[in-house]
Amino acid sequence: MPVPTILWENEELTIIDQTKLPLVLDSITLKTVEDVWDAIQKLRVRGAPAIGVAAALGVIVGIRNFQFDDRTALVEKVKQVADYLATSRPTAVNLFWALDRMKAVCDRYSSATAAELMAKLKREAVTILEEDKLICRAIGRSGSDLVPDDSTILTHCNAGGLATVDYGTALGVIYAAHEAGKNITVYADETRPLLQGSRLTAWELKESGIPVTLICDNTAAKVMHENKIDLVIVGADRIAANGDTANKIGTYMVAVLAKAHGIPFYVAAPSSTFDFSLSSGERIPIEERDPIEVVHGMGKQTAPDGINVYSPAFDVTPANLITAFITEKGNIFPPFTENIRSTIGTK
Amino acid sequence: MPVPTILWENEELTIIDQTKLPLVLDSITLKTVEDVWDAIQKLRVRGAPAIGVAAALGVIVGIRNFQFDDRTALVEKVKQVADYLATSRPTAVNLFWALDRMKAVCDRYSSATAAELMAKLKREAVTILEEDKLICRAIGRSGSDLVPDDSTILTHCNAGGLATVDYGTALGVIYAAHEAGKNITVYADETRPLLQGSRLTAWELKESGIPVTLICDNTAAKVMHENKIDLVIVGADRIAANGDTANKIGTYMVAVLAKAHGIPFYVAAPSSTFDFSLSSGERIPIEERDPIEVVHGMGKQTAPDGINVYSPAFDVTPANLITAFITEKGNIFPPFTENIRSTIGTK
Repeated sequence: MPVPTILWENEELTIIDQTKLPLVLDSITLKTVEDVWDAIQKLRVRGAPAIGVAAALGVIVGIRNFQFDDRTALVEKVKQVADYLATSRPTAVNLFWALDRMKAVCDRYSSATAAELMAKLKREAVTILEEDKLICRAIGRSGSDLVPDDSTILTHCNAGGLATVDYGTALGVIYAAHEAGKNITVYADETRPLLQGSRLTAWELKESGIPVTLICDNTAAKVMHENKIDLVIVGADRIAANGDTANKIGTYMVAVLAKAHGIPFYVAAPSSTFDFSLSSGERIPIEERDPIEVVHGMGKQTAPDGINVYSPAFDVTPANLITAFITEKGNIFPPFTENIRSTIGTK
Repeated sequence: MPVPTILWENEELTIIDQTKLPLVLDSITLKTVEDVWDAIQKLRVRGAPAIGVAAALGVIVGIRNFQFDDRTALVEKVKQVADYLATSRPTAVNLFWALDRMKAVCDRYSSATAAELMAKLKREAVTILEEDKLICRAIGRSGSDLVPDDSTILTHCNAGGLATVDYGTALGVIYAAHEAGKNITVYADETRPLLQGSRLTAWELKESGIPVTLICDNTAAKVMHENKIDLVIVGADRIAANGDTANKIGTYMVAVLAKAHGIPFYVAAPSSTFDFSLSSGERIPIEERDPIEVVHGMGKQTAPDGINVYSPAFDVTPANLITAFITEKGNIFPPFTENIRSTIGTK
């Protein structure tokens, strides 16, 4: 990655505007909390871990100019800003997890002055950012053990440096295996409608010198049938207590296909992606996106006017299609309900 | 369909230019055999049956201005034009079948004069066109028996009026069920990279008043998991003697997903799509298309410069994933090798 996806420097939040990739690598500074909300909603910053980090820093953006001589008012303001940012996207649980961590700072330092609390909040947001970097590297190390030498890996969407601060989860595993000297090649699903696979994953891997072949999503089955794929690694937006996993639409497709072809299917994600409040994936809220992303996604209208479109942004892969989870706390194999709980804890 | 996909009137070959749909319904007259070749290669006319009809009429376009006082020279010219048209696309066997029918006319009328032979050739091409209309309606009637009332059908790519002269194979079944008073709704895969599902199928069904919902190809698994799909019907480009079926890339994906969800998977095609020279699907030639269709398909570059792309235009669905074939000679159930042979004959 030439520059980090999210940068916090001199109290300014700067992100790569991912909607402009791969043609333009452009960073933008998010000056207001509305800018942050908009950047998350429009996918200028996306990927569950990156959304969490951006939201935590977004809280600081939202409160830093607040006149905080009254501690109670500051706490109220944190809550208001966090609640606002929580409405930007519904599925990735890391968003709520990061905002909860920010709100918890207010509870934890209940006797701090407003100025002290402001300092603690800033430190928490920066900690979340710094932890993300360490977590991704730990995920990479853990997952690398599962990747044989001379492997070809299929991935879907982008769970790379662009979905985190700078290294990635699914792609973090690929980077770690590559750095360990393994000969890795990748097939990247383009990932309709917003093409995170072709715009982001293909770009990232090319920048990193890892051989990558782009395919349309509907070609994943064929490359599996041609015995070209040794394993699948994807990211996650929310994982229920039993291992059911919400991730970019099409992930469930890939998981069913991997099962049918006897190919291991791994989910790489930080522990912040696990949601123990949900016993299974059935109640994970699934965002539906504007049909215009499907019918007018690439500069040109490609369907008749007024056509009915179903465009869920995510699907849920049942745990029984998942070979293992790769987390910063280690790889988790079935039985998932027990092993997720013992590895990740209940938070 | 407001106008036929292929029109032969006053010895002029006119087609809908399908690359302009759904925004513009524009017909073009193909004046030379090179125009016909180019229209097939660029998918201005596409769909296995339509390619066959266009090629047969293309032979007439290629010979009609030939000075044919010498019968031998005319026969040679027919062969030359047919061989040229055969190079336009490799997978749909209907192309070769139609050209073989045209060449066979020369053999059949071995004592005809050049003028008589020219008349026979014209009649054969028009017969192929007229037969296509009748065949599609017979396919529709036959397949309609397999469609329960209140059904939701998933289809992939376009096997509609736009893939034939005017009614369709897979969509012909849907039209016939609809005309029989059944309550039918359709999910249409958009079908990357060239979006025949969103550009053509959605347009056709909307014009016909059949409710249709457009989805990205990677969403088919989710709608199946949501129990929204009662059956799948697709077309075919070439069917081997054992039932292995080449069709638009992604069809194999849909077939695997249908099997995993217990959903019947039907292939609707005329008997001209069966290729008894191939015992199985392994040796069906699969066209690879220009990567630009994937990375620059809709007016805008969507992947990094120089990225490696794998873009097969077709895949092969093994016969064991197919519930039945729907043909103008009746529906064919397993065991396919025997039943295809007894229903279709060996040609």
